[in-house]
Amino acid sequence: MARISESTVRRLSHYYRVLEEVHAEGKAMISSHRLAEREGVTSAQVRKDLSYFGSFGRRGLGYKVEHLRKELRSILGLDQRWRVALVGAGHIGSALLAYRGFAAQGFDVVAIYDRDPARIGQKIGGLVVQDAAAIPGAAALAIDIGVIATPLKAAQEVADALVAAGVRGILNFAPRKLFVPAGVTLRTVDMTMELESLSFALHQTRARRRRAGAAG
Amino acid sequence: MARISESTVRRLSHYYRVLEEVHAEGKAMISSHRLAEREGVTSAQVRKDLSYFGSFGRRGLGYKVEHLRKELRSILGLDQRWRVALVGAGHIGSALLAYRGFAAQGFDVVAIYDRDPARIGQKIGGLVVQDAAAIPGAAALAIDIGVIATPLKAAQEVADALVAAGVRGILNFAPRKLFVPAGVTLRTVDMTMELESLSFALHQTRARRRRAGAAG
Repeated sequence: MARISESTVRRLSHYYRVLEEVHAEGKAMISSHRLAEREGVTSAQVRKDLSYFGSFGRRGLGYKVEHLRKELRSILGLDQRWRVALVGAGHIGSALLAYRGFAAQGFDVVAIYDRDPARIGQKIGGLVVQDAAAIPGAAALAIDIGVIATPLKAAQEVADALVAAGVRGILNFAPRKLFVPAGVTLRTVDMTMELESLSFALHQTRARRRRAGAAG
Repeated sequence: MARISESTVRRLSHYYRVLEEVHAEGKAMISSHRLAEREGVTSAQVRKDLSYFGSFGRRGLGYKVEHLRKELRSILGLDQRWRVALVGAGHIGSALLAYRGFAAQGFDVVAIYDRDPARIGQKIGGLVVQDAAAIPGAAALAIDIGVIATPLKAAQEVADALVAAGVRGILNFAPRKLFVPAGVTLRTVDMTMELESLSFALHQTRARRRRAGAAG
């Protein structure tokens, strides 16, 4: 199989969501045009993205919704279960644990770690919060994915400990760049950066308006 | 001022965080090399990114931490206050309201909307949850930013209503592509997509190992 770029995977993820919606509406077929439209790309792009994985559509007829949905589900690995360790049981961590989509997508949290003595020993979602010092013990739990929801300062150290315990995927919520060895997949949800990028854009607009006002 | 790319802004955001950390450690100077290292880019990139906004460093001496920190804070618009309307008071919305970094970065939630009759009228963080049907009334509140934390299906409609009420920036947590008119800045935090991208990568690795095992 050809090496698939991260942006291709992101589009597949979007196509999958469109297919879920269309499937729920009871539609049997979807055109590459309709898939493309929702994602803001060309239909040629849709056909190219899907062609990596086989031949799904029929010219002029489009794609069978249920078939393509199942295929994408399998391609994205969503029909498998993944064992997750959550590090950091604060606001973000708790929201994740309460997020039903997490389990629905195949992610089972099997261990929770925190460094705060006030949280260690507490029970959240049926799991007892363990001391973060015990992360090396996660090796015995066959964890696939580590979710880092710690403060910025602890994040790299936690990532290192998770990788040493055999974790092969990391979802990082801490607002900093993490370094992981080759063979470990890192994905980042950096809300702080998105907020700053938003405030930058609004600030530029505000400043432009002021200058226009001063000139007018 | 030249048009600044989104990736430049993201790096500025990271430099700012490094500077905050280094400032807290009491350091007065930082080299472009050190800034680059943490972000995984070249020091030439750091100098280029900063050069858009003026001449900050001195060859061989590096940057004054406190000065550059303040400059970046101003460039990113973080010394301003932004009025935020939150739509969707579920898990993600509540986590956001509880997130202290939100206010610390200048984002003041001044209105909360939801469609769920069980949530409308409830008080969260000092604000009464209003019916989402009242979003047009947000025009009177001079909202800068709308945060969308609704289910997927409602997201585009909510975005349209927010834009019609004069909102110029949208932070979207709903896992779908949104369309906004030119002049409105959209940033997306799509956790579902990150999870699917992670599961895709792990699935590929798992499949490769199985094939290797079968061949061996």
